[in-house]
Amino acid sequence: MSLPPKLNPPNRTLLGPGPSPVSQRVLQALSLPVVGHLDPEFLKIMDQSMAMLREVFQTKNRLALPMSGTGSAGMETCFVNLLEPGDAVLIGVNGVFGTRMVDVAQRCGAQVDTVEAEWGTALDPQQFRTALAKKKYKVTAIVHAETSTGVLQPLDDIARLVHENGSLFLVDAVTSLGGAPVRVDEVGIDVCYSGTQKCLGCPPGLSPVTFNERAVEVIRNRKQKVQSWYLDLSMIEKYWGSERVYHHTAPISMNYALHAALRILLEEGMEASWQRHRQVHETLVREMRKLEVEPAVAESIRAPMINTMTIPDGTDDARVRQRLYDEFNIEIGAGLGPLKGKIWRVGLMGYGSRVENVELLAKALKQLI
Amino acid sequence: MSLPPKLNPPNRTLLGPGPSPVSQRVLQALSLPVVGHLDPEFLKIMDQSMAMLREVFQTKNRLALPMSGTGSAGMETCFVNLLEPGDAVLIGVNGVFGTRMVDVAQRCGAQVDTVEAEWGTALDPQQFRTALAKKKYKVTAIVHAETSTGVLQPLDDIARLVHENGSLFLVDAVTSLGGAPVRVDEVGIDVCYSGTQKCLGCPPGLSPVTFNERAVEVIRNRKQKVQSWYLDLSMIEKYWGSERVYHHTAPISMNYALHAALRILLEEGMEASWQRHRQVHETLVREMRKLEVEPAVAESIRAPMINTMTIPDGTDDARVRQRLYDEFNIEIGAGLGPLKGKIWRVGLMGYGSRVENVELLAKALKQLI
Repeated sequence: MSLPPKLNPPNRTLLGPGPSPVSQRVLQALSLPVVGHLDPEFLKIMDQSMAMLREVFQTKNRLALPMSGTGSAGMETCFVNLLEPGDAVLIGVNGVFGTRMVDVAQRCGAQVDTVEAEWGTALDPQQFRTALAKKKYKVTAIVHAETSTGVLQPLDDIARLVHENGSLFLVDAVTSLGGAPVRVDEVGIDVCYSGTQKCLGCPPGLSPVTFNERAVEVIRNRKQKVQSWYLDLSMIEKYWGSERVYHHTAPISMNYALHAALRILLEEGMEASWQRHRQVHETLVREMRKLEVEPAVAESIRAPMINTMTIPDGTDDARVRQRLYDEFNIEIGAGLGPLKGKIWRVGLMGYGSRVENVELLAKALKQLI
Repeated sequence: MSLPPKLNPPNRTLLGPGPSPVSQRVLQALSLPVVGHLDPEFLKIMDQSMAMLREVFQTKNRLALPMSGTGSAGMETCFVNLLEPGDAVLIGVNGVFGTRMVDVAQRCGAQVDTVEAEWGTALDPQQFRTALAKKKYKVTAIVHAETSTGVLQPLDDIARLVHENGSLFLVDAVTSLGGAPVRVDEVGIDVCYSGTQKCLGCPPGLSPVTFNERAVEVIRNRKQKVQSWYLDLSMIEKYWGSERVYHHTAPISMNYALHAALRILLEEGMEASWQRHRQVHETLVREMRKLEVEPAVAESIRAPMINTMTIPDGTDDARVRQRLYDEFNIEIGAGLGPLKGKIWRVGLMGYGSRVENVELLAKALKQLI
């Protein structure tokens, strides 16, 4: 065969739904010398990353570690470890990722009920109250920041109802973690997963998860093995814990990147990062209004890190996005499902959440619409 | 919390069972600017990597792509996509990875039979003949290079018997691919998986897999969904194929590294790489003999990339390995399971398969044993 050209990827400003821009410090961490997955020095790095993850998740949970796959692997980790065939699960669905949760839970043989809301709106706690009054659910799951719609779901009311039912509260924080408060212990989230490629400012490839003791107890009391060997936390926690029992070869370089990214986030501080995401989001809304581009989601439930904007009438969606790539090296996201062609998704996440990026995009869109 | 120190991993010479040493070119690829998983430029890189993977697997299979997890995720990909509850599977077991295959297949609800051999010896085709004469198996699976024992399993006879039975032949080439001939089409391997962190010379994190049309047909004719959403090839092939349907966010940086690593391998050429692994292995055997350290496996079935050596009587296994780390920055592997404390595992894989590395190790061991 003739060999392909050497890699020469463009230098994009990543303002889509993820991956988000990655700082030089994190990119440099990726290219540090690879060591073994049982190297004493790597074991120290693992411990440090777990400690930092607890801080980022705002939890005292012992079990907080990065799964060796992307955010969807984190989702699957939570469901396959908690569920056994026939278990009842309640899932909130108002976008792609709630829909995905249903699919994943059904593949575990679970009995899935849903609480639904129109895409672009929030789930209604009242509907959870009704559903939870009728049946005991082993797990109730919702998405915090729905990347497909730009909705930031309020958690507190649903958390309380879920616990009154005796159900475990499972939250998808793939897009929100680092960019908006995800206070695992304070809110009462029993199980939470995230991804590295959003507000953590790291390339895609790992999925941090955390389980509290109540959730770990559910894993301990399983009747049958977890259906996924690769995602089986009862084995993985023995590698990340003091036993150091080999499970799979950890992705060393990606774990370096995560360590660097978590350190950058904690240097800034969680509160400061949340505030920065909020302020840059507000700047975007102001700048887009000048172009008569309006947010697609009601103000009170807008996710600051994933901004869905209604595409103005008469604007050619695909052409604008292609020209953003070709002429400005900017990526924004298209709408998915029922929102295809109706919205753009502008990610302002992690290292990418900066006023300069809003200005770049506003300047470009001014020429294109 | 007090922040951990910045990353400063040691510069090890990785002569263990993997990860293997990574060249500067591959490390540099890791730190290239991240682009989106639907960026037109990334889609080109994906196509190029698939073409290179076909060359490396020596196959014309359309389906050849890297799964977004480590080698064990590749193993699970093969079993979960092919198997449904109640399916009959025959697995060769003579080490850790054959044992793992049994566990993974059982978690799919399969009926698993095994052909076993003592750890450190090869599987006997005659036993496959006997087993395959008794029952029709949907899949027959073996490990090519057993990383836990250092055995390189001859494939041809078993391949023929498997096909006479009408079974699919599934081969674990995690450790062998790139370092010894894995001629997928010529041997008649229907399904094959590998890992990036062995003879491909890339950090751990991805698992290349290939399925031929007969195997793809089995996936198409499934009665129920694949139990793993994350590893469901019927969806993943739509992202890697012409449809470009979003499934999960591909690990961009790891895919850069794989692209660079595959290109380096093909620049050298497959035959040349196999020959180099063979020659460096022979040098190791000679050098170790001078220290009265003998290979643990019979000559005809020694895997050139993972050399198991019998620990000399009276040598303190753990202490030698620790001193190799501390005084020489060299990693070698310990024995696993029944071979713990009895053997060392010396990986000479990919970029690490070089005479200089043999010399480094010989010089160090001379002082330690």
